[in-house]
Amino acid sequence: MHRIPAAIGLLALLGASGAVQGADPLPSWNDGKTKQAITEFVEAVTTPGGADFVPPAERIAVFDNDGTLWAEKPMYFQLAFAVDRVKALAPGHPEWKEEQPFEAVLEGDMKALAAGGHKAILQLVTATHAGNTTEEFAGIVETWIGTARHPETGRLYTEMVYQPMLELLTYLRANGFKTFIVSGGGIEFMRPWTERVYGIPPEQVVGSSIETRFEMRDGEPVLVRLPKISFIDDREGKPVGINLHIGRRPIFTFGNSDGDLEMLQWTAAGEGARFAGLVHHTDGAREYAYDGDSAKARAEAEAGGWTVVDMKEDWKTIYP
Amino acid sequence: MHRIPAAIGLLALLGASGAVQGADPLPSWNDGKTKQAITEFVEAVTTPGGADFVPPAERIAVFDNDGTLWAEKPMYFQLAFAVDRVKALAPGHPEWKEEQPFEAVLEGDMKALAAGGHKAILQLVTATHAGNTTEEFAGIVETWIGTARHPETGRLYTEMVYQPMLELLTYLRANGFKTFIVSGGGIEFMRPWTERVYGIPPEQVVGSSIETRFEMRDGEPVLVRLPKISFIDDREGKPVGINLHIGRRPIFTFGNSDGDLEMLQWTAAGEGARFAGLVHHTDGAREYAYDGDSAKARAEAEAGGWTVVDMKEDWKTIYP
Repeated sequence: MHRIPAAIGLLALLGASGAVQGADPLPSWNDGKTKQAITEFVEAVTTPGGADFVPPAERIAVFDNDGTLWAEKPMYFQLAFAVDRVKALAPGHPEWKEEQPFEAVLEGDMKALAAGGHKAILQLVTATHAGNTTEEFAGIVETWIGTARHPETGRLYTEMVYQPMLELLTYLRANGFKTFIVSGGGIEFMRPWTERVYGIPPEQVVGSSIETRFEMRDGEPVLVRLPKISFIDDREGKPVGINLHIGRRPIFTFGNSDGDLEMLQWTAAGEGARFAGLVHHTDGAREYAYDGDSAKARAEAEAGGWTVVDMKEDWKTIYP
Repeated sequence: MHRIPAAIGLLALLGASGAVQGADPLPSWNDGKTKQAITEFVEAVTTPGGADFVPPAERIAVFDNDGTLWAEKPMYFQLAFAVDRVKALAPGHPEWKEEQPFEAVLEGDMKALAAGGHKAILQLVTATHAGNTTEEFAGIVETWIGTARHPETGRLYTEMVYQPMLELLTYLRANGFKTFIVSGGGIEFMRPWTERVYGIPPEQVVGSSIETRFEMRDGEPVLVRLPKISFIDDREGKPVGINLHIGRRPIFTFGNSDGDLEMLQWTAAGEGARFAGLVHHTDGAREYAYDGDSAKARAEAEAGGWTVVDMKEDWKTIYP
């Protein structure tokens, strides 16, 4: 590296950075107590010498994905992926025409699929997410996520991420935080696109997983995805997944449902300043309005003084 | 941040960095083909526009721990920890005086312990590494690692890390690599001290693990360590662990035994420039001389042109 040109480059970057710092880092958030709670927390933990200062290495921020960073209606986007995979694989499985939950999927009968409950979902996942190598699966996800469109908005699914949350991720990273996803969704379903879309690299994605097995194929090592669930990163599994993958307790957590309750509790109970946030889906016009499975989390948010985002009131825009 | 002082600070850093670049980044490595293989690889993957250039985000380097970053004789240091834990817990377990493998440990009969094989080790691990919370266990490890001393050198175990490997870790990070440990050792045995000793934070440590369970105790959430093995991060488990925790294939790997063979194969088989390195323990005077369980890895290193470190020839100093 030549010293002088590098210095000039850094000065240019600094200039740009200075300009951004003068501007609002969260332009899609309306002014109010929610936005204020976020910026006050970040200022408190990043002010050297302050009572709440946290060293950069310990500034771990974790985010749920479905319903927190991107939408999750009318069905989890990963379920839409599984449905499309069933359709793509159906020609090789004529028996699926008369076998649930595949019959329901092929006929578009979401009620029958829902009636199959958890077991049906597991059957779908093992039939559509396993049997290939990790690299083959990543390629399938990349193709799908780059082309499939949401049935109601017509947008790519990655265009249904929440603009205010993208700004929040960037704002936290600019303040020395390391940002992670901690989702009930499949870890290998998210990793192919989280870096591009959220700026979160694969090694900072925690999720549910199936087992993989190391094999030599024609002298080349591969990891084969097995039709067996290894870990469910949901509810009480979220603190377990955080501990396994991160090994530190987060100081900042955002979720949106009771599936995030234990992760929020785990974060909030740590010593020192902590931020626990909950997205509440209140905007039927621009997104979806639903309480869903979040009664416990909202009650605990109220009791514990957590920050609740009212999408309709707090967000200027929803999607990028 | 004020713009001008920050710019001056950055220029000062640049100056310092320029000075370091002029010096040898690997002063404890003797000049020769091993050191050259390392520096040539790093230059190749970091030269913008070069045929082998790798973007920083993909510069993943993984290191085995026992025998690669620190010594492992006369027994794995984590086994020494387990032995000390048995002695500390023995007053509460009078039955251990007549029950293997505890009897062997309490009588210092390492032959009888070894005769118990894998089963005895598992019994030791579950008896000494479980039953407490993750935070309690981290505290126990920190106390032990800060006081226990090696039976032959009298050093703290963390003073038996390899100085040349510390320099290599620093050199790689200075060149944009993200450094990880991928060890058969316990993930929660390593995490309390890897950041201080190796500069590797908890979220970049991959290892074997036992199961944990989220619980509320007196209204406070805790993670309880259960006496059940969850994952063995060894041999074919290492690529599986890398995929689960990192989600990218490393471009640089260092190991020392057949326990690292699959990880080395997985790395070497990737597209583009790859570095696969093997530490060979050839220095009976300054460390230990043994081939141990590394015949397959050494044969494959020879066939595949991997880099083999001859500790006696290649390293000027062993410990810091």
